[in-house]
Amino acid sequence: MRDVAIIGAYETVHGNLSGRSLRELIIEAGNGAIKDSGIERKEIEALYLGNYAGNEFNNQNQMASFAATLIGLGHLPAFRVEAACASGGIAIRQGFLAVTTGQYDTVIAMGAEKMNTKDPTTTMEIVAKGQDAEIEGGFCVSGPSGFALNAVRHMHEFGTTKEMLATVAEKNYFHGSKNPYAHKRKVIPFKNIMKASMVTTPLGFHDMSLVTDAAAAVIITTLDKAKAICKKPVIIKGSGLGGDYFSLALKSTSTAFPATIRAAEEAFKMAGVKREDINVLECHDCFTITEIINIEDLGFVEKGKGGPFTLDGNTRLGGKLPVNTSGGLKSKGHPIGCTGVGQVVEMTFQLRDQADERQVPNARTALTHVLGGPSATSVVHILQRGYE
Amino acid sequence: MRDVAIIGAYETVHGNLSGRSLRELIIEAGNGAIKDSGIERKEIEALYLGNYAGNEFNNQNQMASFAATLIGLGHLPAFRVEAACASGGIAIRQGFLAVTTGQYDTVIAMGAEKMNTKDPTTTMEIVAKGQDAEIEGGFCVSGPSGFALNAVRHMHEFGTTKEMLATVAEKNYFHGSKNPYAHKRKVIPFKNIMKASMVTTPLGFHDMSLVTDAAAAVIITTLDKAKAICKKPVIIKGSGLGGDYFSLALKSTSTAFPATIRAAEEAFKMAGVKREDINVLECHDCFTITEIINIEDLGFVEKGKGGPFTLDGNTRLGGKLPVNTSGGLKSKGHPIGCTGVGQVVEMTFQLRDQADERQVPNARTALTHVLGGPSATSVVHILQRGYE
Repeated sequence: MRDVAIIGAYETVHGNLSGRSLRELIIEAGNGAIKDSGIERKEIEALYLGNYAGNEFNNQNQMASFAATLIGLGHLPAFRVEAACASGGIAIRQGFLAVTTGQYDTVIAMGAEKMNTKDPTTTMEIVAKGQDAEIEGGFCVSGPSGFALNAVRHMHEFGTTKEMLATVAEKNYFHGSKNPYAHKRKVIPFKNIMKASMVTTPLGFHDMSLVTDAAAAVIITTLDKAKAICKKPVIIKGSGLGGDYFSLALKSTSTAFPATIRAAEEAFKMAGVKREDINVLECHDCFTITEIINIEDLGFVEKGKGGPFTLDGNTRLGGKLPVNTSGGLKSKGHPIGCTGVGQVVEMTFQLRDQADERQVPNARTALTHVLGGPSATSVVHILQRGYE
Repeated sequence: MRDVAIIGAYETVHGNLSGRSLRELIIEAGNGAIKDSGIERKEIEALYLGNYAGNEFNNQNQMASFAATLIGLGHLPAFRVEAACASGGIAIRQGFLAVTTGQYDTVIAMGAEKMNTKDPTTTMEIVAKGQDAEIEGGFCVSGPSGFALNAVRHMHEFGTTKEMLATVAEKNYFHGSKNPYAHKRKVIPFKNIMKASMVTTPLGFHDMSLVTDAAAAVIITTLDKAKAICKKPVIIKGSGLGGDYFSLALKSTSTAFPATIRAAEEAFKMAGVKREDINVLECHDCFTITEIINIEDLGFVEKGKGGPFTLDGNTRLGGKLPVNTSGGLKSKGHPIGCTGVGQVVEMTFQLRDQADERQVPNARTALTHVLGGPSATSVVHILQRGYE
């Protein structure tokens, strides 16, 4: 296994980009990452793309070949990976595995999703197919209602409160307000979050992530090559992929996501770093409760302590362990198949000291985490500065 | 890189299976492959699934987690791969790469597609998204009309005739008539094929592949483990993935598929075998012209000689190089994301001497080949008997 590094990273501005085509987003992200890396296009050997449902959102399937062609790499091996909201994380993992095992020396991993349609209900129907649509969908289990069950149980078992959930939202809005790539660049006062209309008890309007369009890309190569050509390489120290049962009815617990626990175990073991080495992380806050459960499952706090840890300000910029400095899915946005790639772009910015107003001082080691569908797929990456 | 072998293979009967659910097909194929391998479920470490458009055909996305859960493997790492008609080939390749690089010891690679909908036009609209839907689709470029352009040019440059195309169809119907897993188990007389109604000149009704429902699965492990537990392991000697530009407008040629040439080069180099070592193969006959071009691009005959080679009976059971003994996409059927896995199942049967009436005597080395979308993605595998 060879050491692997990121030498180029780019993401488009996130948002409801009704005036921009999927083509434009892919071209901007792909060319942006290549330019950022400083390598020539011909040095790239393969492309991996995370995308959830381009065939339904954009009338376009086989999107990896589509994307490769748009950025002048149509002659390369390319395929799409999909595991709902974890798709982008898997694209990164595929790129990492290809380089670490010696299959290719240099690859591009991309994510793209343009999911705002003319009708928000259509978008939600497409998103809802990321769970057992026939059986559980028929009983009104959806993303919001499914994760609301986790919230209710977490509150019951551990005393997690609505205030703790609102703290996640307020923090991520605050972080996103400092991120020029974020969908919602606006601070929302805590009291407004608390009094927002309820969507599915106990999750209100501000406990939900955004419906967002974006594309992102990173260039991945060997650490040897990275050190030769790049001033600030970012090492991919560890990668983990974990699964869990697709049906809520088969879950072993409602207060943890076993897929995340499995992915984190693999990634930390591979990376050879400890939880306390992580200076900053992006994790999957599809709902506010998800961030609280994630920081527990990733091993940063004891089970049940995620709420109080958040309430105490530890996960805010300036706190002990800043979480979702980009604004997360809550404020940067959640372009499904792009999200996992965008997280790696944000952490690359942090580890290169390029995160401007949201920079975590002396960030040396970072983590990214996505969770797909009914907490059925999780991907964790551990990144580290590759320069002094 | 470790040697890798197939120890279990299963496919469902192919057809327009309106009475069977996608769930049933996945459960039958997954459990069938596990049973065929003789291993215990707990020995499997990951699942890869090829599927093209389950979200549109079956209202179900994130289908790898869905499939893993249905066969009692929901706790495993699992994701879906998609490159249109090449999706199943990529699932096999992912399984091969995971084992050969030491990432996992034993995995399952599956393919599934239930693509017959209530309305054939809907099905065709979904299939058409596997090309540049916005730009080329707007000019009526589809699978049939796109490959018809290849046929016209091949006829013009090399003198390929309508009789040669019809010979592919007649042969594959004949092969399929001997395959209990085939969609269309019926011989069609040559003269009927010749006088069939034209769909898109020069391709008629019998030059087209079928719209088919099916699932298939194989169990992949190390050759060491395979030899210890399996009487007839089948070695995966080589794997190749090639790409080409997604737009017909950007193609460098109309009479070859550069993606196939690239995939074959990688696979043959890895396998260390020669073209003349191949005793039998399955290749992507989405249209009759495609089979003719494929056997050229795979290197079995000179460019332009695929038609005469076929007309002379070389590719028929009993000929020098039997092609598509299963009946191919023409007669066994073309369940998009399943096709590449089903090809490997058929070649496993051949290499185990289990192909009954369609057995190629002394088959020792075999090849599989799929082509995705507008000839943008190709996957080639070379398989060999792992026993004496």
